[in-house]
Amino acid sequence: MAAHSISILITGANRGLGLEMVKQMIETAQPVKNLFACCRDPDGPKSEVKVSTSYLNFLPYIMHRNDACDHDSIKQAAKQVYSVTGAGGLNLLINNAGILFRDNVQTTTPENMQDTFNTNVLAPVLITQEFTPLLRTASKASMIPGMSCRKAAVINISALLASFESVKRTYNFLPALSYRISKASLNMLTVCAAEELKKDGILFAALHPGWVRTDMGGEGGDIDAQESVKGMLAVMTSLSERENGAFLDYQGKTLPW
Amino acid sequence: MAAHSISILITGANRGLGLEMVKQMIETAQPVKNLFACCRDPDGPKSEVKVSTSYLNFLPYIMHRNDACDHDSIKQAAKQVYSVTGAGGLNLLINNAGILFRDNVQTTTPENMQDTFNTNVLAPVLITQEFTPLLRTASKASMIPGMSCRKAAVINISALLASFESVKRTYNFLPALSYRISKASLNMLTVCAAEELKKDGILFAALHPGWVRTDMGGEGGDIDAQESVKGMLAVMTSLSERENGAFLDYQGKTLPW
Ligand SMILES: NC(=O)c1ccc[n+]([C@@H]2O[C@H](COP(=O)([O-])OP(=O)(O)OC[C@H]3O[C@@H](n4cnc5c(N)ncnc54)[C@H](OP(=O)(O)O)[C@@H]3O)[C@@H](O)[C@H]2O)c1
Ligand SMILES: NC(=O)c1ccc[n+]([C@@H]2O[C@H](COP(=O)([O-])OP(=O)(O)OC[C@H]3O[C@@H](n4cnc5c(N)ncnc54)[C@H](OP(=O)(O)O)[C@@H]3O)[C@@H](O)[C@H]2O)c1
Repeated sequence: MAAHSISILITGANRGLGLEMVKQMIETAQPVKNLFACCRDPDGPKSEVKVSTSYLNFLPYIMHRNDACDHDSIKQAAKQVYSVTGAGGLNLLINNAGILFRDNVQTTTPENMQDTFNTNVLAPVLITQEFTPLLRTASKASMIPGMSCRKAAVINISALLASFESVKRTYNFLPALSYRISKASLNMLTVCAAEELKKDGILFAALHPGWVRTDMGGEGGDIDAQESVKGMLAVMTSLSERENGAFLDYQGKTLPW
Repeated sequence: MAAHSISILITGANRGLGLEMVKQMIETAQPVKNLFACCRDPDGPKSEVKVSTSYLNFLPYIMHRNDACDHDSIKQAAKQVYSVTGAGGLNLLINNAGILFRDNVQTTTPENMQDTFNTNVLAPVLITQEFTPLLRTASKASMIPGMSCRKAAVINISALLASFESVKRTYNFLPALSYRISKASLNMLTVCAAEELKKDGILFAALHPGWVRTDMGGEGGDIDAQESVKGMLAVMTSLSERENGAFLDYQGKTLPW
């Protein structure tokens, strides 16, 4: 079966893992028809868009001022994407944007809790909701049997810290209470959406990128963004209906809830 | 060892499971020194405080206008409780107040998501935070070895719907996306707090009350509030450091995450 070219949307694409995903997708052998690299601000203080030359050529695809936490901005993005993809729909949505505070039960604040919830949970919920019609369109338009990321899929970038089983082992090192709560929530969204939308042929999975040396992961991380994204893209390529609702790491290993 | 009398606080105590817990605690053989039955409004539209005679005698213990979502109101409550318990501290905190919307990925709204998060997650986080000093005091003041609900404990009333394993089986019947996310979050709070505060001798556990015929559970529920609460109180009595961070149902059975 000949590979057909697909449309992909990634949030938080101005730096870190999101930017690296865009880079590797441009360079890949697999053809990408439309790559919607979303970010709040390509010129933001930490943005790496400008220093990345291979990325610069791709700038027309960046949608400016797409704040993942702003519902109107999400609706606007869905309209823009629809105006480009039309009857082809959107094949792959990657909810990657995220934030992390180093809080715990005794130090967290309502602001930490709410900001983290809005960015890491509410935004993916609303983005999934607004893009579901486009994903359904892609699923219907596709000739590929079963489920896959080249047909219609949502990948939520989660974290090992969301694993209940990991808390005993990792809590002292990095409590990040609001973040753990938010990523467990993102995992729950993944499992629920997988169940709700399987009839439409849309695949959902949660991926842990590894501990990566980005701004969030810090310099002590185990791997660099290149290795993490190489792994995650390989995992995405391998996904089928068997992994619908799964929680996997960048090497394809199933993680416990 | 002679049973000593303890101080207990319950949220959402004007109806449903919260009210039934108060009733059974009053009637129990185990002496309760102070019972802080908190609610937003004892005269609220659905409140059952007035129709409950045995409860009426207990009204002085009800703290009016304690909205679980209002940080100032929580701080105020902690002060009030401290002024009553003093050096005895608070032995048992039960985070019971909760709300449920019947939404799913396609129908939920930012309001549903945020209201549910504020009531079912943020409120228990802030209540736990504000009452930690009083729980620590109780733990230090207690002569009981190990961990227990008569020494220092927080019980979070969770739900089977929070179990990732349950989604395939239960989603079609009751999606309740925002609720599932919130109770998975509450479970994560439970596990993190258990890890963070074990050095202070404070026990944390999440309890599923069963499917109960309350306003939330509806008439189709498996059991009535009396049976559920009888079970949950027995489970609470049985808890020790072995169950720190556990997720159990009202019969004491461990539930999968
Ligand atoms: N690095 C790790 O070790 C690690 C481990 C586990 C999971 N993860 C997850 O992987 C994902 C990417 O992380 P990363 O390491 O690349 O983090 P990062 O370097 O800190 O980048 C975070 C990205 O999210 C964007 N973002 C934050 N809030 C946003 C909002 N409201 N609207 C739009 N974009 C927003 C940021 O954009 P701005 O420039 O506008 O802030 C940035 O593009 C996150 O979901 C993270 O939780 C990372
Ligand atoms: N019933 C079941 O089958 C079932 C199953 C699993 C888990 N649960 C859990 O068990 C707990 C009790 O449920 P229930 O069946 O007794 O529900 P319920 O009959 O609907 O009662 C809910 C209680 O929560 C209170 N509440 C809601 N929002 C509040 C706020 N912002 N501040 C203070 N109080 C607030 C309500 O007070 P108002 O009168 O002021 O609204 C009421 O007292 C909940 O956490 C629920 O999720 C129930």
